[in-house]
Amino acid sequence: MTSPYDIDLDKNAANFVPLSPLGFLERAAAVYPTRVSVVHGKTRHTWAGTYARCRRLASALKKRGIRKGDTVAIMAPNVPAMVEAHFGIPMAGAVLNALNYRLDAATIAFILEHGEAKVLITDTEFSPVIKEALKQLKKTITVIDIVDPLGPGGEALGEKDYEAFLDEGDPNAAWDHPADEWQAIALNYTSGTTGNPKGVVYHHRGAYLNALGNILVWSLASKPTYLWTLPLFHCNGWCFPWTLAALAGTNVCLRRVEAKAIFDAIADEGVTHLCGAPIVMGLLLNARPEQKRDFGGRRIKMMTAASAPPAAVIEGMEKLGFDITHVYGLTEVYGPSVVCAWHEAWNKLPAAEQAAIKARQGVRYPVLEGLMVADARTLEPVPPDGKTIGEVFMRGNIVMKGYLKNRKASDEAFAGGWFHTGDLGVCHPDGYIELKDRSKDIIISGGENVSTIEIEGVLYRHPSVLEAAVVARPDDKWGETPCAFVTLKEGQSVSADDIIAFCKQNMASFKVPRTVVFGPLAKTSTGKVQKYVLREKAKAL
Amino acid sequence: MTSPYDIDLDKNAANFVPLSPLGFLERAAAVYPTRVSVVHGKTRHTWAGTYARCRRLASALKKRGIRKGDTVAIMAPNVPAMVEAHFGIPMAGAVLNALNYRLDAATIAFILEHGEAKVLITDTEFSPVIKEALKQLKKTITVIDIVDPLGPGGEALGEKDYEAFLDEGDPNAAWDHPADEWQAIALNYTSGTTGNPKGVVYHHRGAYLNALGNILVWSLASKPTYLWTLPLFHCNGWCFPWTLAALAGTNVCLRRVEAKAIFDAIADEGVTHLCGAPIVMGLLLNARPEQKRDFGGRRIKMMTAASAPPAAVIEGMEKLGFDITHVYGLTEVYGPSVVCAWHEAWNKLPAAEQAAIKARQGVRYPVLEGLMVADARTLEPVPPDGKTIGEVFMRGNIVMKGYLKNRKASDEAFAGGWFHTGDLGVCHPDGYIELKDRSKDIIISGGENVSTIEIEGVLYRHPSVLEAAVVARPDDKWGETPCAFVTLKEGQSVSADDIIAFCKQNMASFKVPRTVVFGPLAKTSTGKVQKYVLREKAKAL
Repeated sequence: MTSPYDIDLDKNAANFVPLSPLGFLERAAAVYPTRVSVVHGKTRHTWAGTYARCRRLASALKKRGIRKGDTVAIMAPNVPAMVEAHFGIPMAGAVLNALNYRLDAATIAFILEHGEAKVLITDTEFSPVIKEALKQLKKTITVIDIVDPLGPGGEALGEKDYEAFLDEGDPNAAWDHPADEWQAIALNYTSGTTGNPKGVVYHHRGAYLNALGNILVWSLASKPTYLWTLPLFHCNGWCFPWTLAALAGTNVCLRRVEAKAIFDAIADEGVTHLCGAPIVMGLLLNARPEQKRDFGGRRIKMMTAASAPPAAVIEGMEKLGFDITHVYGLTEVYGPSVVCAWHEAWNKLPAAEQAAIKARQGVRYPVLEGLMVADARTLEPVPPDGKTIGEVFMRGNIVMKGYLKNRKASDEAFAGGWFHTGDLGVCHPDGYIELKDRSKDIIISGGENVSTIEIEGVLYRHPSVLEAAVVARPDDKWGETPCAFVTLKEGQSVSADDIIAFCKQNMASFKVPRTVVFGPLAKTSTGKVQKYVLREKAKAL
Repeated sequence: MTSPYDIDLDKNAANFVPLSPLGFLERAAAVYPTRVSVVHGKTRHTWAGTYARCRRLASALKKRGIRKGDTVAIMAPNVPAMVEAHFGIPMAGAVLNALNYRLDAATIAFILEHGEAKVLITDTEFSPVIKEALKQLKKTITVIDIVDPLGPGGEALGEKDYEAFLDEGDPNAAWDHPADEWQAIALNYTSGTTGNPKGVVYHHRGAYLNALGNILVWSLASKPTYLWTLPLFHCNGWCFPWTLAALAGTNVCLRRVEAKAIFDAIADEGVTHLCGAPIVMGLLLNARPEQKRDFGGRRIKMMTAASAPPAAVIEGMEKLGFDITHVYGLTEVYGPSVVCAWHEAWNKLPAAEQAAIKARQGVRYPVLEGLMVADARTLEPVPPDGKTIGEVFMRGNIVMKGYLKNRKASDEAFAGGWFHTGDLGVCHPDGYIELKDRSKDIIISGGENVSTIEIEGVLYRHPSVLEAAVVARPDDKWGETPCAFVTLKEGQSVSADDIIAFCKQNMASFKVPRTVVFGPLAKTSTGKVQKYVLREKAKAL
């Protein structure tokens, strides 16, 4: 039987508009035109100004023939042009492809080729690598240079600089609200520890929703002052460019992540919030006294992700004046999609215990509809016992459209109607998940699963250890045994036996590394430890 | 040419889930199971408990044959069952029809008939009117009684009470996430000053989005304690039942809106937020000293809407410890959709000036995509001069699906691709809109448009005036002249000439009421002044 609700109640122009974060910019400019949108050194833009610059960018791109579904790439540190790219490029109907500036020329050439970029906006700091990448590229594309007075200089490769390019645009030209919220807004390549990087495609709907998701999980009030330590190329800065527009907040740019610059920005610009990998926390914790600044007792909110931050690091940061929120996500889910949501009752626990709880990844963002730890083949959830390891699966509106021109990888990633993260973890009795490893990183020793993250957590508690990474080493008797790669703090000297003895005191014996190697850790361009390189080294030992 | 983004990047179960506020409840129960969800007298429910009760309700309804697209009505004050109805009924796939408990039996019978309700859940306080309505209804429906120990008692009309009905349900039964976010979630009848009420249909998408919209405009942090002074039947409590689930906040119920009960709840339950019509502010301002309570210096956040609050009232409330946020909306846009977004700079203005700014309706919610004051025929926006009167139009995802079984009314409301509010206003140079009147309320005197709201604002500043309403009175010479209906504060006596003299000092002479009538004002069931009744009276003078 037809319900009366099925009749004459259809979508129309008055009651349905595709979701898009671009409307946040228009509203910020309309409601708070004079509020500061972007700070970069002495440069200050207002929201009205940023909106005008973004409309110029959209208009200039359209005048160059850029159309819906075209890709526009950008290679830049956290500068105003990078913030503007998050609006101006999709306002032309195009797809923003922010490049990782730590990549080599060959990979960049691959991405420009695969992503079919028609325009590249590039900061002259990266001219050497871009020049080489363009040489390797099989076609010619439009190149625009960002010539930033705060940058280190560098050769101009393009036909004109970014400011002159903006001048080509008309700030009063109409811009494109997407006709469909499923339309692509961004293309982000995974760092790809092996093989070619994959192009993760985001849509307007997901960008809109995760921009709001950040507000919900961080209880963000109107107009935060946000410091850009997290690279904007990294999952579109976890969607924060759109979050800040929704709140009419202030973006404080930072070309280089350095302890002094961070402390100065917090003290001088009144920064209230920042995001960053644990490496940023290490930088702040190990800053020299003369680099540190007094914040006048203000507590700073910091969101951190990537590898689980060692409890000792979280504890140190809290003492330094930072309230840490731990989130977890992947490029495929618009950055963070899981948060260690806090309970008031936990405030009464000893600091070390709080830090241990905070190191768990937690629960789904409100805008992610499903999260589970489950058997990788059956998709049957594991018991919530904090022990049974399974793969982490996600489902919802902040899961990517898929991988560009890679149906096979998309199908594998979405098999069974869930996104397969490739991360292994457990589900605690309270429903919070905790990562134990990447599926390919887990060690199986004598038939027992050994979490390398757990061992690393112990190693980080050793007073002399600066960095640690654990991988499997083939072993005739046990199949595999844990092998620890350790970097010591400046001026420290400890023996492998000392490290092993420390581990024995702090974990089950079958988890204790049989081998300890000292020296710097191989890392990817985003600062992640390259475990496959370490595995090769361990094998060759 | 096909863009690569158009290929193999479709929706699937992993990356697309229909938006619905029901997921907020599941998450609140999973993440904060022991946190208090609902307070009602001595009764305390937790989020885990509320989720279980809602699943029972959904399951019990389904066992009675309720299916997707069926209507379930509820007639209740702000009690736990009313909060639960906002989840349990749509979790059965059904549509929640919350009835205005101030309506007469004939209107309720009309709504039950027109809305095709299959089940009615009704608080025994309203048994007399419901008994009569059911008598007038042409069919028999399932009736469940809410027998609330905190209520005044009353005859049980149904086959069993609500708690026993919940016992029929299985808290572990699967509930229905909507298959389509456009699916109806609620049916709200307009109060209808003339003619039959119209049934406004909401969808899951809009309920989800406006639940978040409230968080955005009010900078709501996690877990507010929210007092239910606003009736839950009123635009689904402005979507706040869903907002509170998204934040895992606490709903403090209130059967009756009385000054002492409000002050007690704020002081004893730690209420942080409430919404209410200006009449609630009047109640608090005019409370007797022994009814008032000390909040220990805490500032309480109050959101108010309906008619523009007179500046004097806003000023008084701020002094009393309430930070007022002024919003504006209609049943057709899920409650509030426009907010007087505040600027820090305004804090430095004199209190009266701040209150005058705050009386403006403001700017669009971030989740409403379009708002304009425009010519009613051409839809051409009026100049933003703060003077030119036009009709207020809205467009976006929190505009209703349409009116149930009333295509003609829907088509009229959506003509030209904008929702016609029927409200008249101006747009200020800063883009903030200010209502001047309902289109049918405006007075045209000697060819000049006269805003009755403006005159009322002046009347409210008169120290002896408690309430005021202005309507047009037919006039041979001027066409129409303003006629003021005034209620005086207790113990006050003022003459019509005094009132007129006061007006002359505060407005252009053509706006000054020619006639002043003292006595109580005719009001609708939702407490709105019935201007059409006053117009009839003015005509007959």
